[in-house]
Amino acid sequence: MSVSQTPEAMPEWLAARAGSHGGHLALRAGAAQMTFADLDREAEAFARRLATLGVGERTRVAALLHNGAPFVTLVHAVARLGAILVPLNTRLATAELAWQLSDAGVEIVVATADLADRAAAAASEAGAVRAVTWDDVRRGGAAAVDLRRAVQLADPQAIVYTSATSGRPKGVMLSFGNHWWSAIGSALNLGLHRDDRWLAPLPLFHVGGLSIVWRSVIYGMASVVAERFDPDDVNRSIDEDGITIVSVVSAMLQRMLDARAGRPYPPALRCVLLGGGPASASLIARCLDLGVPVAPTYGLTEAASQVATLHPGETRRRHGSAGRPLLPNEVRIHDGEILVRGPSVMIGYADRPDATARAVRDGWLHTGDLGYLDGDGYLYVLDRREDLIISGGENVYPAEVEAVLREHPGVDDAAVVGVPDDAWGQVVAAVVTRRAEASATEAALVAHCEARLAKYKVPKTIRFVADLPRSSGGKVLRRAVRERTASGSVPRDR
Amino acid sequence: MSVSQTPEAMPEWLAARAGSHGGHLALRAGAAQMTFADLDREAEAFARRLATLGVGERTRVAALLHNGAPFVTLVHAVARLGAILVPLNTRLATAELAWQLSDAGVEIVVATADLADRAAAAASEAGAVRAVTWDDVRRGGAAAVDLRRAVQLADPQAIVYTSATSGRPKGVMLSFGNHWWSAIGSALNLGLHRDDRWLAPLPLFHVGGLSIVWRSVIYGMASVVAERFDPDDVNRSIDEDGITIVSVVSAMLQRMLDARAGRPYPPALRCVLLGGGPASASLIARCLDLGVPVAPTYGLTEAASQVATLHPGETRRRHGSAGRPLLPNEVRIHDGEILVRGPSVMIGYADRPDATARAVRDGWLHTGDLGYLDGDGYLYVLDRREDLIISGGENVYPAEVEAVLREHPGVDDAAVVGVPDDAWGQVVAAVVTRRAEASATEAALVAHCEARLAKYKVPKTIRFVADLPRSSGGKVLRRAVRERTASGSVPRDR
Repeated sequence: MSVSQTPEAMPEWLAARAGSHGGHLALRAGAAQMTFADLDREAEAFARRLATLGVGERTRVAALLHNGAPFVTLVHAVARLGAILVPLNTRLATAELAWQLSDAGVEIVVATADLADRAAAAASEAGAVRAVTWDDVRRGGAAAVDLRRAVQLADPQAIVYTSATSGRPKGVMLSFGNHWWSAIGSALNLGLHRDDRWLAPLPLFHVGGLSIVWRSVIYGMASVVAERFDPDDVNRSIDEDGITIVSVVSAMLQRMLDARAGRPYPPALRCVLLGGGPASASLIARCLDLGVPVAPTYGLTEAASQVATLHPGETRRRHGSAGRPLLPNEVRIHDGEILVRGPSVMIGYADRPDATARAVRDGWLHTGDLGYLDGDGYLYVLDRREDLIISGGENVYPAEVEAVLREHPGVDDAAVVGVPDDAWGQVVAAVVTRRAEASATEAALVAHCEARLAKYKVPKTIRFVADLPRSSGGKVLRRAVRERTASGSVPRDR
Repeated sequence: MSVSQTPEAMPEWLAARAGSHGGHLALRAGAAQMTFADLDREAEAFARRLATLGVGERTRVAALLHNGAPFVTLVHAVARLGAILVPLNTRLATAELAWQLSDAGVEIVVATADLADRAAAAASEAGAVRAVTWDDVRRGGAAAVDLRRAVQLADPQAIVYTSATSGRPKGVMLSFGNHWWSAIGSALNLGLHRDDRWLAPLPLFHVGGLSIVWRSVIYGMASVVAERFDPDDVNRSIDEDGITIVSVVSAMLQRMLDARAGRPYPPALRCVLLGGGPASASLIARCLDLGVPVAPTYGLTEAASQVATLHPGETRRRHGSAGRPLLPNEVRIHDGEILVRGPSVMIGYADRPDATARAVRDGWLHTGDLGYLDGDGYLYVLDRREDLIISGGENVYPAEVEAVLREHPGVDDAAVVGVPDDAWGQVVAAVVTRRAEASATEAALVAHCEARLAKYKVPKTIRFVADLPRSSGGKVLRRAVRERTASGSVPRDR
């Protein structure tokens, strides 16, 4: 009885793939192409250069890089040193960057040339942080240090800041095991084909992009990284790069379909993984009409991306669902909240034992998202718990009201929030962007809602705006909507 | 830092698949067809019936069943009770069965009707073993016991006796984790397609068949079980059942190709997994000529089946190799012997701590097989260490000599062994089955070998027989050849 049945270590994935798939394409990003052998060599060389800057076991190394081959190389180089990657959102302001550098205990930040000034300013503001450019490191000397030859599953790989919709972002510490199990669960659900190529138009600094970097080496599969999101470029990549799977959020997919103008995607495209919050029924319907193999997914940074995913073949039959939990993760609902347990659940929030203890109890991650499971175990995600509106004791799910507003032909998009009210506790308020100003008047939309919703769900105010505030991931920031709406006037009747 | 990164338990696989793939075909065997929902229900009902016979946690339950739906149902029913399956080789004599029942500490043996008498006789000879028929259990009462809802990866699933080529067979205790990791490693190598159907013409009582039962529920994939091996039936099943992967041994594949007479297999067939010992170069060449997607594999019971497998796309380029180790297993060579480490390595030999300690040292399974790794990490399997012939201090690999003999047009098959010799320690002896008696004379074959092999490798005696002794898995039993050959006369010159 001498052998553990749950391994704690395994051969280093990129090195293993350089062995088994050395000549296969590992990465395409813009003009750059790398085989697994190339990537293995580059990662090793970059690791030795980083070592000359004092990077070693557990050093926290921030990345302020655009999507591209340097980012992917850095991910693997940092892993080989046993260091921890802190990917930074390139859209953050200097003060925000400085806060994250300091919060994450970063010692060195590696930036692309055009972000070097911001990295330097943020590093200086944070104090005790060194800023270097990727090119400087690449040109620097190399140290003859020992590099990791095995993956320790329990070791931290990265601290990824959540694209928080409220409060300060928290650093989510993800392990190599989190990524392994996420990749396995995804493969068991979506399958794994020899010719798979996974396109990442998502930022690699978010978990949705980062997880593709890891799947690539775990599967021996090429990833294609879009350097920025442009709907025409993404469509062209799907056509020309033999893409079989692409990860997107709703706003991206809408724009891709608009740009596509009804032209079908090639049959090789077998999965459009749609994350970043519940997808609208109209977007799903549009995909089904066009034969787009859309697979809605529910995931979060704290669970290393996908938690539940529909298989594209099920989307028509399970309208509105995000699918079943990916093996071996489990999902249950407690007081309306979605809980997740399994090996994809984060190590914890970095350096925040209290927040970790609140979020993960008895192994169950409390996601803060509301939803339910149907009789067959399919998950339906409703809303963030913090976005739930309680009006006169009744629960109002903003997503439900938003979906009804979006059904109106004059409405482009909508965000619904609760605003404080003396009589009812909260009342429903909407902010709307319009396709057609003439038809989508406040009176018309209220009438539209009244015909479809209980009275307490109908917005008491509707404000028209040019754009909704969004996170860099494309999610509507209801917190920002709430803050702006709370300052407006709210009628008292309900 | 509160969550383990290596799970010890996961949702019960069959139940999970009954949820996610309830209406999908799980099993076809002869006329029987079962969806995952059917199989889940049947396994649960059978478990409750077994419980009335006293089967519970850790009870050792032997199966003396032919390939078919009852076998698969029993596998899952036993697992749900936390009991341990002891699959028995249906070709064993009563005395051999009795020995295994006793050796494995079996309390109850479940047999098909036509094997009931042998089961009863063996049970009686073993003492303290109850024999029942599958049908009796099926018709019996049910107990309201708690059934397992989770898989504990470290728990024993089965004790599988090795189809030993020497000595008494040993019971290999395999865990659920062994099967899980074997299935994952296989999928990462061969891929995983939504329409996969894996055909098992191998006996389910061997690990090669049993592992397909587990892959079916881990992947949510249909398995098709051949009730017995018939080359025409297997070929027909590949044509008509949408088979994408089939597991075979060389002798089966030879007969399938003979029966096929050059007619190509359908393109849906994407992998012919060829195990059961090193495949002959001529068989591989024949497959490549016919476009058969053959994937030679090296596996053993002690590692829950596949350890290394070529991808069909690599077979031409890596002639003679069994491929690279399946992630996350590792292979290394020590003193010529193949060692394996990883989560597919058995718990140990059941109730044989000494044998386990000899076989598994520092986590490395000593396979007793000889081989080497090339510069790219591809494994080449030579021979069983016990079959190695040392003649005048030189190593002679029987497989090499056999391969040369098989290249002769008059030779059908050959087995090469060492026989004791006073002058040289051992000398090489061959036993041959012929296609053409006229051309394949002893003198002709010796001349054929002398033109291709060093003198010390050339057989000193060649005996012609009608059939070679084989295990139920189709492997040539060199031990039996050795015993018969040792009694013959051996010339002294070399």
